[in-house]
Amino acid sequence: MSAFTVSDYLLQRLHEIGINHLFGVPGDFNLAFLDRVIAHPRLAWVGCANELNAAYAADGYARSSGAAALLTTFGVGELSAINGTAGSYAEYLPVIHLVGAPSLAAQRRGDLIHHSLGDGDFRHFLRMQREVSVAQAVLTAENAGAEIDRVISEALTQRRPGYLLLPADVVGAAVSAPVRPLAPRNVADPQVLAAFRAAADKLLAQANSVSLLADFLADRFGVRQQLAHWLEAVPLPHATLLMGKGVLNEQRPGFVGTYAGEGSAEATRRAIEQAQAIITVGVRFTDTITVGFTQRIAPASNIDVQPFSATVAGEHFSPLPMSAAVTELRRLCERYAARWPQPVGSPAPLAPADRPGMTQNAFWQAMQTFLRPGDLILAEQGTAAFGAAALRLPAGAQLLTQPLWGSIGYTLPAAFGAQTAQPERRVILLIGDGSAQLTVQELGSMMRDNLKPLIFLLNNEGYTVERAINGAGQRYNDIAAWNWTQIPQALSEHCPAQSWRVAEPVQLTEVMKLIADAPRLSLVEVLLPQLDLPPLLQQVSAALNRRNSA
Amino acid sequence: MSAFTVSDYLLQRLHEIGINHLFGVPGDFNLAFLDRVIAHPRLAWVGCANELNAAYAADGYARSSGAAALLTTFGVGELSAINGTAGSYAEYLPVIHLVGAPSLAAQRRGDLIHHSLGDGDFRHFLRMQREVSVAQAVLTAENAGAEIDRVISEALTQRRPGYLLLPADVVGAAVSAPVRPLAPRNVADPQVLAAFRAAADKLLAQANSVSLLADFLADRFGVRQQLAHWLEAVPLPHATLLMGKGVLNEQRPGFVGTYAGEGSAEATRRAIEQAQAIITVGVRFTDTITVGFTQRIAPASNIDVQPFSATVAGEHFSPLPMSAAVTELRRLCERYAARWPQPVGSPAPLAPADRPGMTQNAFWQAMQTFLRPGDLILAEQGTAAFGAAALRLPAGAQLLTQPLWGSIGYTLPAAFGAQTAQPERRVILLIGDGSAQLTVQELGSMMRDNLKPLIFLLNNEGYTVERAINGAGQRYNDIAAWNWTQIPQALSEHCPAQSWRVAEPVQLTEVMKLIADAPRLSLVEVLLPQLDLPPLLQQVSAALNRRNSA
Repeated sequence: MSAFTVSDYLLQRLHEIGINHLFGVPGDFNLAFLDRVIAHPRLAWVGCANELNAAYAADGYARSSGAAALLTTFGVGELSAINGTAGSYAEYLPVIHLVGAPSLAAQRRGDLIHHSLGDGDFRHFLRMQREVSVAQAVLTAENAGAEIDRVISEALTQRRPGYLLLPADVVGAAVSAPVRPLAPRNVADPQVLAAFRAAADKLLAQANSVSLLADFLADRFGVRQQLAHWLEAVPLPHATLLMGKGVLNEQRPGFVGTYAGEGSAEATRRAIEQAQAIITVGVRFTDTITVGFTQRIAPASNIDVQPFSATVAGEHFSPLPMSAAVTELRRLCERYAARWPQPVGSPAPLAPADRPGMTQNAFWQAMQTFLRPGDLILAEQGTAAFGAAALRLPAGAQLLTQPLWGSIGYTLPAAFGAQTAQPERRVILLIGDGSAQLTVQELGSMMRDNLKPLIFLLNNEGYTVERAINGAGQRYNDIAAWNWTQIPQALSEHCPAQSWRVAEPVQLTEVMKLIADAPRLSLVEVLLPQLDLPPLLQQVSAALNRRNSA
Repeated sequence: MSAFTVSDYLLQRLHEIGINHLFGVPGDFNLAFLDRVIAHPRLAWVGCANELNAAYAADGYARSSGAAALLTTFGVGELSAINGTAGSYAEYLPVIHLVGAPSLAAQRRGDLIHHSLGDGDFRHFLRMQREVSVAQAVLTAENAGAEIDRVISEALTQRRPGYLLLPADVVGAAVSAPVRPLAPRNVADPQVLAAFRAAADKLLAQANSVSLLADFLADRFGVRQQLAHWLEAVPLPHATLLMGKGVLNEQRPGFVGTYAGEGSAEATRRAIEQAQAIITVGVRFTDTITVGFTQRIAPASNIDVQPFSATVAGEHFSPLPMSAAVTELRRLCERYAARWPQPVGSPAPLAPADRPGMTQNAFWQAMQTFLRPGDLILAEQGTAAFGAAALRLPAGAQLLTQPLWGSIGYTLPAAFGAQTAQPERRVILLIGDGSAQLTVQELGSMMRDNLKPLIFLLNNEGYTVERAINGAGQRYNDIAAWNWTQIPQALSEHCPAQSWRVAEPVQLTEVMKLIADAPRLSLVEVLLPQLDLPPLLQQVSAALNRRNSA
């Protein structure tokens, strides 16, 4: 039995916080650490085709299971991944990024070593990582235990990436095993909570109607179940924005549709905005999900709950954990709910197919029928996400989108990560042809691991989301034309996948029947008109174009 | 006729410095600029499948034609590309990185806009870019002309990336057209040059033998022709390291092989190291090209010429442009050459095939025969580059490798960039299966543009270069098994490519005959033993393993 090392300490902590898979790409500075990963009884190594894909996969894994870990090598690997890490930072996912590095001895000497900039400065990349992570550490044999605990705890507390640099001569150093579990930082303050309760009580006591708008941070900071129980106890008109779609059960009474400011259905907008008290939980009004900041939430009527603070009619309370604020609000709602009207109505139906043949509307009609409770749906930023915004999700279904960071190509590796986290769940990936080209190689990894996502490749011959903003017919919105149905066979020597190309709604419906329970990766290429847009995207792209030329 | 704008100014300057192609990926913040690119009579837009590939392609273009330009969008796009930019920084390529950004108005308001981190701070990415570029500017209507000139001039002077942020509300602003050509910064000083001349004279006058070692910076700082004329006038024993291979004509008398410290052939090492005066021009002794810093160049015997300085027997001279120093050294050599022995010998022959079937040695024997004068060869860091180190290049042939930054996957898009710069030249890409998976989608772009590189895909089932360092049989060095010969058809709807799979040397020779002048992309998958290594790589990997565990 060899000694307990820095590697073992780190892997034990990762497993302790619910991480069972480590995504990444090997490199010579992380190979010794990888030997310990392979030897670990409960952590599995998941090699990816490149580092950006690995970062996206880790992000998708964190969205499905709470946290994730990513391993790359110094310089080349970590910088290839850094756009994925930035997305995890922007959209609040605790991904622990481990980077195998040259030995501390070589760093101190300033050796002209490969994967460095050749100038003897080994901190360039650490400085870059500081912009997209909430805690960083360069591990040494002396600081390893304390620094690993600090970085992981801070990442868990803030639900954002943490960065650990593992020099090659440190990973094998002997350390003591952890003696107590990790404790994420506690941000509660009883006096602040009491003041918040009093202010919220005053507002809610006077209100004759209340609406609830929850979004992605409610998922990230773990109050999804609390919100579900609250709405079971006190039915309220409720909605999410596109970013947090799936946080609330869309099959319950009071669900009024996806809120998008002026991009909402009129009934949705009224149900949320015109209540006398509007409770917002974990919401950030970013441009693409509000059709360019068109939300109208009167501050005097608003109780806004954020991860570590809340605001009631303009008065700010901090520090205040989201979970504690939600508990108080539920209690207050239970006290006053008898006076409020029972929520009525239901979300607007999907736009009907407006012409023959395959169209965006026809596709989303078919997709609505295809969905089942518990599905995990990933919709790429573009026609896919804005089309999915109009779906009514079955109970327990979850939608993963990336509307703030909006990095095209993200969802394909993210689907790999999500399916790795939840191999038994049905994972449905909705992605355009332009986006899929960025990250296509991860289909090979999915087939290697015998995963079985159902992939709908929306082929509209290029970057339709950008044609909508500018240059509808410009050559820069064209892409290389691929044979999509041949891709799975090319990317897997013993291809377990099936592919179809459909051009008519009836074909789509037939294929959907065939693949609904397929035990293998299925790729359905759906041919769509080049300039056809889901209704919400028409409004969003007009707003973006106005703002870019303002 | 519309007014002359910031876009026009920038494009005029790019064209002025020899850039005829702009690589990148469109995004909504750069579309208005792209309209001006498409309208430009002499600059062509080259869309890539993703931004990292675009950065690699731009780097390859800069290696072939002196400078390059890259266009991405804010945040997501520029960070996806940043590992490629870091490689251009480490290995001295002036790539001008243009980033389409949110309007200055939105930045000033701190809007929660897509492709930002959602915190109102629009300088995160600028701070990151500072680590990997020599000049940066955020353009405004007022500063655009001056800042464009400053950033491009500094990038050209230092042969490293420059960064220009183009807010969406700035690119269309009216500006005056440039009135005089760009002038890269002048670093010469006559007194320093005189002092250098005197010191070099003293050393060379006493020497009874002189050797010349030139490397990649001689290419980057434009003294390739000067070196060629020098060696024609004064034959000297000469070599390059792997990084600069092709800088010197390897068919001339006095070429002694590729220098790699203790990894050199014994005759090569002696010819360089044992001269009484050793002139090094544009050399950086980094780890992988010296088998872990095993060069032995006695400082007292060394005249070392760097881009902006030189050192003679330990005495430092700065500022001193490389070109001026080389001119002086040639004059001095002409003065004293009569006393020096005529160089004899020639580089060691390639290692012969040591067993039947396809092996690394058999492959490199066949490749040596296949090469022609003027070929442009790209060899991926791994078995490809270290095998190519032993080739004797035909006259005018050039080898592109990336041994310092060493980012795997680099050469595939770099070949796209190089072939775009020089469409009539024969481009030969040597890349392993593990590396090609990282960036494979750019094959589609090459076929879209009807380019005709000859690609040898060295399939040894995973990361052989890493197996050599650690974990020969470990699962983390395995990759997903692909059907390589099906890839071109999958990535092009009207596939103009041909593919072969060869397992025997005789097959390889036959295919080489077929494709030698092929007017289309050709992909030859070469099946190689998993643990077979070129001789130089055996030594390098042993040295890296020692240093990682030191």
